[in-house]
Amino acid sequence: MTTENAGSPTWDGLLLDARLATLADTGQPYGAIEDAALGWKDGHIVYAGPMAGLPDAPHALSRSVESAGRAWITPGLVDCHTHLVFGGDRAHEFELRLGGASYEAIARAGGGIASTVCATRAADEDALLAPSLGRARRLIADGATTLEIKSGYGLDLASERKMLRVARRIGAVTGASVRTTFLGAHALPPEFAGQQDAYVDHLCETMLPAIAAENLADAVDAFCESIAFTPAQTRRVFERACALGLPVKLHADQLSDLGGAALSAEFGGLSADHIEHTGEAGVRAMAAAGTVAVLLPGAFYALRDTQLPPIEALRRHGVPMAVASDLNPGTSPLLSLRLAMNLACTLFRLTPEEALRGATVQAARALGLADRGRLAPGLRADFALWPVERPAELCYWIGGNLAAAVYAGGVRLA
Amino acid sequence: MTTENAGSPTWDGLLLDARLATLADTGQPYGAIEDAALGWKDGHIVYAGPMAGLPDAPHALSRSVESAGRAWITPGLVDCHTHLVFGGDRAHEFELRLGGASYEAIARAGGGIASTVCATRAADEDALLAPSLGRARRLIADGATTLEIKSGYGLDLASERKMLRVARRIGAVTGASVRTTFLGAHALPPEFAGQQDAYVDHLCETMLPAIAAENLADAVDAFCESIAFTPAQTRRVFERACALGLPVKLHADQLSDLGGAALSAEFGGLSADHIEHTGEAGVRAMAAAGTVAVLLPGAFYALRDTQLPPIEALRRHGVPMAVASDLNPGTSPLLSLRLAMNLACTLFRLTPEEALRGATVQAARALGLADRGRLAPGLRADFALWPVERPAELCYWIGGNLAAAVYAGGVRLA
Ligand SMILES: [Zn+2]
Ligand SMILES: [Zn+2]
Repeated sequence: MTTENAGSPTWDGLLLDARLATLADTGQPYGAIEDAALGWKDGHIVYAGPMAGLPDAPHALSRSVESAGRAWITPGLVDCHTHLVFGGDRAHEFELRLGGASYEAIARAGGGIASTVCATRAADEDALLAPSLGRARRLIADGATTLEIKSGYGLDLASERKMLRVARRIGAVTGASVRTTFLGAHALPPEFAGQQDAYVDHLCETMLPAIAAENLADAVDAFCESIAFTPAQTRRVFERACALGLPVKLHADQLSDLGGAALSAEFGGLSADHIEHTGEAGVRAMAAAGTVAVLLPGAFYALRDTQLPPIEALRRHGVPMAVASDLNPGTSPLLSLRLAMNLACTLFRLTPEEALRGATVQAARALGLADRGRLAPGLRADFALWPVERPAELCYWIGGNLAAAVYAGGVRLA
Repeated sequence: MTTENAGSPTWDGLLLDARLATLADTGQPYGAIEDAALGWKDGHIVYAGPMAGLPDAPHALSRSVESAGRAWITPGLVDCHTHLVFGGDRAHEFELRLGGASYEAIARAGGGIASTVCATRAADEDALLAPSLGRARRLIADGATTLEIKSGYGLDLASERKMLRVARRIGAVTGASVRTTFLGAHALPPEFAGQQDAYVDHLCETMLPAIAAENLADAVDAFCESIAFTPAQTRRVFERACALGLPVKLHADQLSDLGGAALSAEFGGLSADHIEHTGEAGVRAMAAAGTVAVLLPGAFYALRDTQLPPIEALRRHGVPMAVASDLNPGTSPLLSLRLAMNLACTLFRLTPEEALRGATVQAARALGLADRGRLAPGLRADFALWPVERPAELCYWIGGNLAAAVYAGGVRLA
């Protein structure tokens, strides 16, 4: 904390009378500091500590000084796994299924991911932006300040680039941080039907280098599953990504244990996501590599899955656990990361503190970001105010918008 | 539709270019009318039909004329089962339980309903109003225009009256309709420990007549369960309620089949709520009496219940099914009725149309209200606008605030 210009305010903002869930490893639950203040300047935190640590005349410190009214302040939530850019929706399919239609009947009627690919390809950039922006704004309204957004519904170079450009525009328009992930290996495009290896060739030789050259992706992901890409194909995608200097992450072991978590770890993957079927060996590999486990309880809930991810093994081996919305039209049309935290507590039995760390500091780690996810000087001024009596309420209340204010880089977004 | 004063506007409001989910029994799914308009006057709907049915110069009809921008308009949602007035919260208990504490340990630490009774009794009317109002506003923000609110955390006459007065104030402050339910037979107050029958005597002889005399309750409810009140005790409460001219409803068969649904039906009950364990006989009795089945999937979810309510039997016997939030601090801290609709579809396999009817027309029926729950001339101008492509999206999207505007009695609330 600088006090040299005590006479002229140098900070941009200062919130007094707050309670901070800093998530610093202080030994206190939530790294809590009661009777606290938060100051920021140039988009970064300059003070996150007790009121008593401020000079006697804090109003001289900052251009803006406000009371937080004893609200709890947490780091801005980080949604580290979304597919929020897409055309159309799958509400009709949802309705058909509840009306008794079989998956086969729905597929015959053009449902499933093919319908989303079709609608996403057909939409121009502005048409894709509008509904995607609406979804991003709902996540932000309930506390999210960083959004990972994947491609994967274009499945050709032009459409994948379009998705990633739209994702970047969402960041520019909303003020939230957006991290993009290239997920060309999400499904097989119809023009490559029956030629999975040829598509992987095309992806590695043409799509990935072009995406990398344009700097459109911050990471590369794949869907490694019996109904998607094999471990061998995934390995090829990862080898190419690494050669291009892009970090990897993986949709791993959601429906069966194909060793996906270990494969992500082998490539130093930022994360292995879903991992319902990951066994002890995969968990060990993640621990050794520092690969984050990204838990996606929205899909677990919507699919009425019963195979729980190996939470106890993850804890035992010290694998960091993140929680994300997985916002997507098919298996998790979930518009609130805070609700994902409640689902993680209710369905996966995470503690509220694990869930909050999972949607902040561990989620930032799953994106390779060390500059956010906690409240500490030097980190980004990304934070949310919550009118609650204790941090556990963020996980306890089910649904409803709870955030009273959301700031990213010191600028109020919601 | 009156056109006599064609020259001078007589309606208060008119929305053009809308899509209506009237929920009228027209044979169309959702009673849908595309390319439609909605007009209202003096708090009631005067037109809900096709644009083509309006005169050539609709702007002359109404003082206010706006485009709905092709939004879907549904009846305002009716939350027919909430306990949203309470002191304190149970987030700490939620956290203790996820940290591994047993129910016994939590009870010893003063947890459970006793802690809510304690906090509710301790709060004065204003202190009880503030957080309760926040919860009501979250329900309203996602489309609710009618809220049923139960007492039952006071358990003495003064505290029960206080709760019901606070409930009424919520209606006055928000503009939503509030229907109050006296639930003195929710739990045994500590001062009657070991004297359940004596409490029921007191409730029937003193509390109920006083509540009725002050006109503080629109209905009477009880919790008939092995851990609460017996069927015989419930019967006594119902007899007294009927003698006082108050309709009844019941927390029935949630944890075991005590014949609660049939008991509610026997007294011509407006509804039997929860009913996870209700058997065929109870369903038959409800059908014969016209008693509504109120499904509460929030508690089912939060308690990780596995006993599904008898949905197929309810359908087979034509029992109307309502869906409600059950918003309460212990078993369903659920702040969105729309999310309850999603839970009902996902967990109970209701169709989206059943869930929407359940949170509108059937919920109104569960409150004995015939003046709302559909869009039709003569009914209350309670409605919500949704920026969606089809009504099923109200159930499809999980969490997030979806309503673009909410009106009650023709007045915009959110
Ligand atoms: Zn995903
Ligand atoms: Zn209840």
